[in-house]
Amino acid sequence: MGRMTQRRRVTRITRQEGTAPSVRERSDVLAGEEPMEMRLNGESFSVTMRTPGHDFELVAGFLVAEGLVGSSPGQSHLSTLRYCAGTDEEGNQTYNVIDAQLEGGDLVGVGRRRQVVTTSACGICGTTSIDAVEKSLPAQAETAPLEMSAETLLGLPDALRQRQQVFESTGGVHAAGLFDAQGELLCLREDVGRHNAVDKVVGWAYLQEKLPLRGTVLQVSGRASFELVQKAALAGIEVLSAVGAPSSLAADLGDRSGVTVAGFSRGRSINLYTHQHRIAV
Amino acid sequence: MGRMTQRRRVTRITRQEGTAPSVRERSDVLAGEEPMEMRLNGESFSVTMRTPGHDFELVAGFLVAEGLVGSSPGQSHLSTLRYCAGTDEEGNQTYNVIDAQLEGGDLVGVGRRRQVVTTSACGICGTTSIDAVEKSLPAQAETAPLEMSAETLLGLPDALRQRQQVFESTGGVHAAGLFDAQGELLCLREDVGRHNAVDKVVGWAYLQEKLPLRGTVLQVSGRASFELVQKAALAGIEVLSAVGAPSSLAADLGDRSGVTVAGFSRGRSINLYTHQHRIAV
Repeated sequence: MGRMTQRRRVTRITRQEGTAPSVRERSDVLAGEEPMEMRLNGESFSVTMRTPGHDFELVAGFLVAEGLVGSSPGQSHLSTLRYCAGTDEEGNQTYNVIDAQLEGGDLVGVGRRRQVVTTSACGICGTTSIDAVEKSLPAQAETAPLEMSAETLLGLPDALRQRQQVFESTGGVHAAGLFDAQGELLCLREDVGRHNAVDKVVGWAYLQEKLPLRGTVLQVSGRASFELVQKAALAGIEVLSAVGAPSSLAADLGDRSGVTVAGFSRGRSINLYTHQHRIAV
Repeated sequence: MGRMTQRRRVTRITRQEGTAPSVRERSDVLAGEEPMEMRLNGESFSVTMRTPGHDFELVAGFLVAEGLVGSSPGQSHLSTLRYCAGTDEEGNQTYNVIDAQLEGGDLVGVGRRRQVVTTSACGICGTTSIDAVEKSLPAQAETAPLEMSAETLLGLPDALRQRQQVFESTGGVHAAGLFDAQGELLCLREDVGRHNAVDKVVGWAYLQEKLPLRGTVLQVSGRASFELVQKAALAGIEVLSAVGAPSSLAADLGDRSGVTVAGFSRGRSINLYTHQHRIAV
């Protein structure tokens, strides 16, 4: 897995009922986390903490979620993605700086955007006031809505977990998996940040020219925050299903944006907060 | 709990082995999540998604974590915190805009800082390049290091969970609890964002004039990311203990900053990644 994980010595303390704690040293595998700087047409735009890997997808998905890249009027398209500059003290390439070349669209707006540092869990960075937090969502597609059986939806967290390679070794990363209505996995990405994992999936779809992602369900390993619902809506995803809880604002945005928001998906049960019509029981 | 939670209709689907899924409607409680805009001396500085409540502490803790507020040369102190402006369509106060008045210190630097939108999980927002991600840490205190028994450390996640009020009703928020070496709880805060919960605890300490927090342990409900170790180090906290996994960079920063980083704290066992000397078995 290369830089996606890192091996490290760890002291493990274990307690048994009625006995004193015991200690042993062992080697452990941790999830990789490194900063990545995104540059747009040569100018620094954002720095995010992420698990290395699928970096081009991460950049593409982040730009889609920022509304900069897409097929709407005023939006740009990505012409090039490449690693640039960025060397460590020994002069080795760090693969932590990526330059994205944008063409077309309202690039004047990009120049005015602030450089922002996002984190491994950042989903709304790049806006500068409360009013700007909620981005304009694309018009609802004219296609018939996705229909998925409750059985299939309930099976997605297991399907996700079984295929999580980095989690298997570290226990420390989030995953986002894109599935079709029959529960077939289309794309799975892992990251220390919930939002990065989603950006990588959406970036994969952008680079494969699969946007908008009508007819798909996004299963995530964590909770459903406002930003994740926003990312799903901007990508045209119809159902966002989370293992954890949604926030109040996530459910509100699901209402308004037409996204089915599901939470507490635990194999035997699941809660549907919005647009229940897509799930057949 | 007011705006910290919100009640909502939900469709619950339950599956029993060998039978068709059943459906029922019920009322559910969700964790509150709303944007909050921070202004410094009247100018917009940052927008974050957060669970309303303890907002002044959140602002104070965020400013400490940004290195703007503190007792080092060039740092400012907070003279006033107040809700301002910010009304909804009906003209009601939203309590989502807070103005912080800073005095002293290098306020020229503040003016140059970008407005940034952080999220409920943002910990390094406000910096603009990879080099700036790691903030300068205060010199290690001269005090004798904290000593805590492994038994006490192992008991902190339970102590945290028992006192989590919002989690109890929503299952959807993170918590950060500050404990002393005997395991006595000093401060507990909850938020949809891991980083906000920590900022609220540190902000509480700042407003109580308790910084630096030598002799304390911070127990968090999620994983230990780079940013959380950085926040702990900046506040002088000696041990960061997480229920989840640390990332590789979190352990690296623990090494360098002198913070004991513990992870996978699950009652019966815990992993120590750095500076194990503080924990007595």
